[in-house]
Amino acid sequence: MLGRKLGERLAADGRLGEAGIAHLSLIDVAPPLPLSPVAIEVDAAVADISLPGVAERVIAGRPDVVFQLAAVVSGEAETDLEKGYRVNVEGMRLLLDAVRGLGDGYRPTVVFASSIAVFGAPFPETIPDQFATTPLTSYGTQKAIGELLLADYSRRGFLDGVAIRLPTICVRPGNPNAAASGFFSNIIREPLHGREAVLPVSEDVRHWFASPRAAVGYLVHAASLDRRTLGNRCCLTMPGLSVTVAEQIEALREVGGEAAVRLIRREPDERITRMVAGWPSRFDPRRALELGFRGEASFAEIVRSYIDDELGGRVAAGLG
Amino acid sequence: MLGRKLGERLAADGRLGEAGIAHLSLIDVAPPLPLSPVAIEVDAAVADISLPGVAERVIAGRPDVVFQLAAVVSGEAETDLEKGYRVNVEGMRLLLDAVRGLGDGYRPTVVFASSIAVFGAPFPETIPDQFATTPLTSYGTQKAIGELLLADYSRRGFLDGVAIRLPTICVRPGNPNAAASGFFSNIIREPLHGREAVLPVSEDVRHWFASPRAAVGYLVHAASLDRRTLGNRCCLTMPGLSVTVAEQIEALREVGGEAAVRLIRREPDERITRMVAGWPSRFDPRRALELGFRGEASFAEIVRSYIDDELGGRVAAGLG
Repeated sequence: MLGRKLGERLAADGRLGEAGIAHLSLIDVAPPLPLSPVAIEVDAAVADISLPGVAERVIAGRPDVVFQLAAVVSGEAETDLEKGYRVNVEGMRLLLDAVRGLGDGYRPTVVFASSIAVFGAPFPETIPDQFATTPLTSYGTQKAIGELLLADYSRRGFLDGVAIRLPTICVRPGNPNAAASGFFSNIIREPLHGREAVLPVSEDVRHWFASPRAAVGYLVHAASLDRRTLGNRCCLTMPGLSVTVAEQIEALREVGGEAAVRLIRREPDERITRMVAGWPSRFDPRRALELGFRGEASFAEIVRSYIDDELGGRVAAGLG
Repeated sequence: MLGRKLGERLAADGRLGEAGIAHLSLIDVAPPLPLSPVAIEVDAAVADISLPGVAERVIAGRPDVVFQLAAVVSGEAETDLEKGYRVNVEGMRLLLDAVRGLGDGYRPTVVFASSIAVFGAPFPETIPDQFATTPLTSYGTQKAIGELLLADYSRRGFLDGVAIRLPTICVRPGNPNAAASGFFSNIIREPLHGREAVLPVSEDVRHWFASPRAAVGYLVHAASLDRRTLGNRCCLTMPGLSVTVAEQIEALREVGGEAAVRLIRREPDERITRMVAGWPSRFDPRRALELGFRGEASFAEIVRSYIDDELGGRVAAGLG
């Protein structure tokens, strides 16, 4: 999802920071959807970067910037331990080694989409930049390992890495999925489409969010950072909004009206409530802010960006 | 070095916490020296645990406790990237997967010797337990990855892991080696043998130490901890002494006299001075202390433990 949105953004901008984009290669395990017609050269390939030889072929064209977003997501990494480690750890290692193997002064920028899942409770109320990464999922463990690899290969001069720890992305487009965190998006997206959504936790649950649009902005900004400003700490917690479910609902009311809010059905789920209790709810992402990363200022802004980007600016009839 | 000392200690104790030791297997890439005659069953094997199949054979006997001390050390991990990752990361993964593969309710205690090298500057003056691991060497990176793997496999119930971050071990027995940190031991050990030692940094350099005896004590204590007291944070910074080189020298004077101190020759080395500046110098290892880990109370105690353990209680003629 983020890969596609990033591709659209890069193709539309035609540039990354100071530099024009000559060529864009999209690689995914599923056939990438064609981008809207664009002026720059784009190719797309179906490939699994965790298989031997694939990363070498991807890197052979000596891209100046590599965005590594490929990952087995949290639910699957938990149910299929081997696949999670193969894709999320071995895949990362193969990519970094492909860069290293090219040698000859090649030193691309590698932007790695990490996650706040690298953190695990117990937490202080606000989590500082220098807090330990003690993940409570295999997915978070694998992202934390990816960060360590990226930082080591950067320090050794093979590449210029930046890992950005993305907040929970909200509002996710598409259908409701089985992810435990899915309800954060479902309770906004579904009502905006005039459909019912289930809320499995209490309204005082607090969590850390950014929109897909903000996340794409972080990826683009990370790629255009001056590497020297990072020093040896190239893994950054991204800005986000610390918002309770009650505040999410209030923003939905503001944008979509009472009719939208009435589509949220309370159905408490103890398993999800317990999981969510171990997730971080607030960060102090001081370094990212100093480095110029900017997210949303209010949850209503997040809701509006969904309506703009996914609904052509209009909510379902009878709402809003 | 620690492996051998740990073997001697376990053989001498004949027990680990509440449990008697029935059998001790020593595995090393070099032929292990025979232990002093002991009452328990001991076998020794030469094997490289990072090669396929070796970990399975080691684990096939279903040991109740596994001490994982095998590592490519920091200097070599820096010069030989591939060997460092193969042994320190793949070797760890193969060991953990061998445990997981046995299944059938097998759930051993795995004690992993980690290191304060998982930390990298900049630091606060005193480093708390929840400080981020941002290593500045490949060795530290590999130890940090080992910790993450151990914690994830523990959380998933395959084993009960404890990672202990050892301070710089001082006084190391044996000959001076090429490690950048070697001088911390050299300036004590060599004078106690009546030999000259080189000090490449200024006397106000501060670092974090424990004796080999204390380190063995940490390993033994880690193996006998009640796993439930650890929760999901099973990687612990060990107690140590935060001591300046001047304080090291003062302790040498106290134990070995002025004649010993005169054997230290100042020979400033800019490269070593720069490296040492990135190393941690003081921790607040609160959790380890709460869990009952105990180190030395003074550097003189460290010097005396060297004299007891390596010199039969006597220093070179003309000293002390």
